[in-house]
Amino acid sequence: MVGRLIALDVMGGDDAPEATLKGALLACSPKSASRVAPERLLLVGDKPRMEAQLKELGGDPGFQLEHASQVIEMGDSPAQALRGKPDSSIMRCVKAVKEGRASAVIGMGNTGACVGAATLALGTIPGVRRAGIAVTLNLTGQPITILDMGANIAPKADHLLQYAAMGSVYAQSCLAQAKPRIGLLNVGEEKGKGTELLKEAYELLEQSGLEFVGNVEGGDIFRGVCDVVVTDGFTGNVILKLLEQFAAFFMGKIVGELKKSGAAAGDEALGKLKSAIDYKSYGGALLLGVNGVVIIGHGRSDEKAVANAIALGVRVADSGVIENIGRGLAAPSRS
Amino acid sequence: MVGRLIALDVMGGDDAPEATLKGALLACSPKSASRVAPERLLLVGDKPRMEAQLKELGGDPGFQLEHASQVIEMGDSPAQALRGKPDSSIMRCVKAVKEGRASAVIGMGNTGACVGAATLALGTIPGVRRAGIAVTLNLTGQPITILDMGANIAPKADHLLQYAAMGSVYAQSCLAQAKPRIGLLNVGEEKGKGTELLKEAYELLEQSGLEFVGNVEGGDIFRGVCDVVVTDGFTGNVILKLLEQFAAFFMGKIVGELKKSGAAAGDEALGKLKSAIDYKSYGGALLLGVNGVVIIGHGRSDEKAVANAIALGVRVADSGVIENIGRGLAAPSRS
Repeated sequence: MVGRLIALDVMGGDDAPEATLKGALLACSPKSASRVAPERLLLVGDKPRMEAQLKELGGDPGFQLEHASQVIEMGDSPAQALRGKPDSSIMRCVKAVKEGRASAVIGMGNTGACVGAATLALGTIPGVRRAGIAVTLNLTGQPITILDMGANIAPKADHLLQYAAMGSVYAQSCLAQAKPRIGLLNVGEEKGKGTELLKEAYELLEQSGLEFVGNVEGGDIFRGVCDVVVTDGFTGNVILKLLEQFAAFFMGKIVGELKKSGAAAGDEALGKLKSAIDYKSYGGALLLGVNGVVIIGHGRSDEKAVANAIALGVRVADSGVIENIGRGLAAPSRS
Repeated sequence: MVGRLIALDVMGGDDAPEATLKGALLACSPKSASRVAPERLLLVGDKPRMEAQLKELGGDPGFQLEHASQVIEMGDSPAQALRGKPDSSIMRCVKAVKEGRASAVIGMGNTGACVGAATLALGTIPGVRRAGIAVTLNLTGQPITILDMGANIAPKADHLLQYAAMGSVYAQSCLAQAKPRIGLLNVGEEKGKGTELLKEAYELLEQSGLEFVGNVEGGDIFRGVCDVVVTDGFTGNVILKLLEQFAAFFMGKIVGELKKSGAAAGDEALGKLKSAIDYKSYGGALLLGVNGVVIIGHGRSDEKAVANAIALGVRVADSGVIENIGRGLAAPSRS
């Protein structure tokens, strides 16, 4: 296996570097269910600042630190920032993977810059035409992986086919789903529904040898009819943001209504529910198809979200999913 | 004003004709907040069956009945059914509007057949290029209208512009929103985001004289940043089904978790919340752009949903929205 380090962009995210460093400490805490050895974490950022902050937080448990002199801010234009800030923390993280020192990157910063840096420096896995962003939700007790969530807003049919293939390998490698069922997000279940793109993708998926269950609709995400949902990055991005905000909105409403009615708020119950839908607990999105594990955390990540993103990075890096995708796409038809 | 009758397709919907007839009775009940006069309702369907069922339900309060010898079933192919069943109840409803006897159609049956019948028989309002489906949600206490929800899955930029204009007129005419703010659903707020279609639509909207607030994201539906959200029918359909199912899923989870935790369930509070997100209370979708008021109810409509769809049909028919759209599109730039 290539470098086992997990590179964390300490400077990325709305509350960086405090939230990222706290998250790293939490991921390595003996109390953590999926404890990560501190020496496996490569913390990349402003080194003096990281050292000072770690001291404040109770000391460095043995992280590897790497200095980066620049930071790509959330508001920066990704393309400009990647050219203008060659020594940014995110680019250094990606380079650590490219150089074989690390096998995964965790970034909560500027999503466009993270995707751009990874695509530029790592390239795609041989055979993969376009990377896609995958998010695994645990809504119904059975994980469901949706991709693409925004890397490729105007895909071609063969990109969708590859998303299905990559999503399938990911679900096998990382989620222990033996024969992941693939659904194509559409406006109706019948074959022949939807845009020309989707009709073409349907044909390709039917012939792919994958466990294709046909078209699925928006509501099917909550019905357990498939394990992997394939969609274009535009629709994926819209529904991801919709789900996130709907969940937050809904929780607020529930707490408000219950309080108004004088009913006991059932804090524990609501907490459980919240964690089932909260981005903080799913850890982040996975940029699938680039030649390395890239986890894109949420910009608003707090320490718990960072720790979950690190845990996800470790799990995916150790699963061999990158190698499996390479093999899978070399022989796309497994019939 | 043209015919004031409201034509109800009694045979359409999963629980027709019982649910539709009960809904008609409920809409005309003296207890109903927005009571409709029974003689304003034109009930279209199998006449002997309607008469028998009304008798069972306590009598006919004075509805107008019209016989239709055929029914388009939920599973029928819309195009085939419209050709093969010329005397269907939905087609008769639409014809009542075409002939000037009625000003609105309410159908809970096969959506494709309802859209097809209306488009074929009524045509579009002069100046309108494509009809769109609008749904008004009352999530935040401030109504938000989203279109297109599925009539036009691959629109052109000028269709999106017209959806904005029609949505704006609708919000003014029926929701008393004086200057409806229009948002374009996209993957980011900045100008220049999204597909070529959306970039082009953005330019058109900027120059339209409408109250265009720019791009909005999936989560903004819950944030009150605009009154009308414009999107393509593919994305709109996916998110409508997603919201519906998410709401149902979420309510189930909440009730389950609260019960498990032993907390008082706060039935009244949950009930209120449920009605805020339930399709039954928003009455149905509006096919905007055809030359008549067409309300598309949910196939699973129960009597309450049917009554709300009728109330919506009356409100929209009496608002003069069709005439206003005609005038608005004749002079699209109101600067």
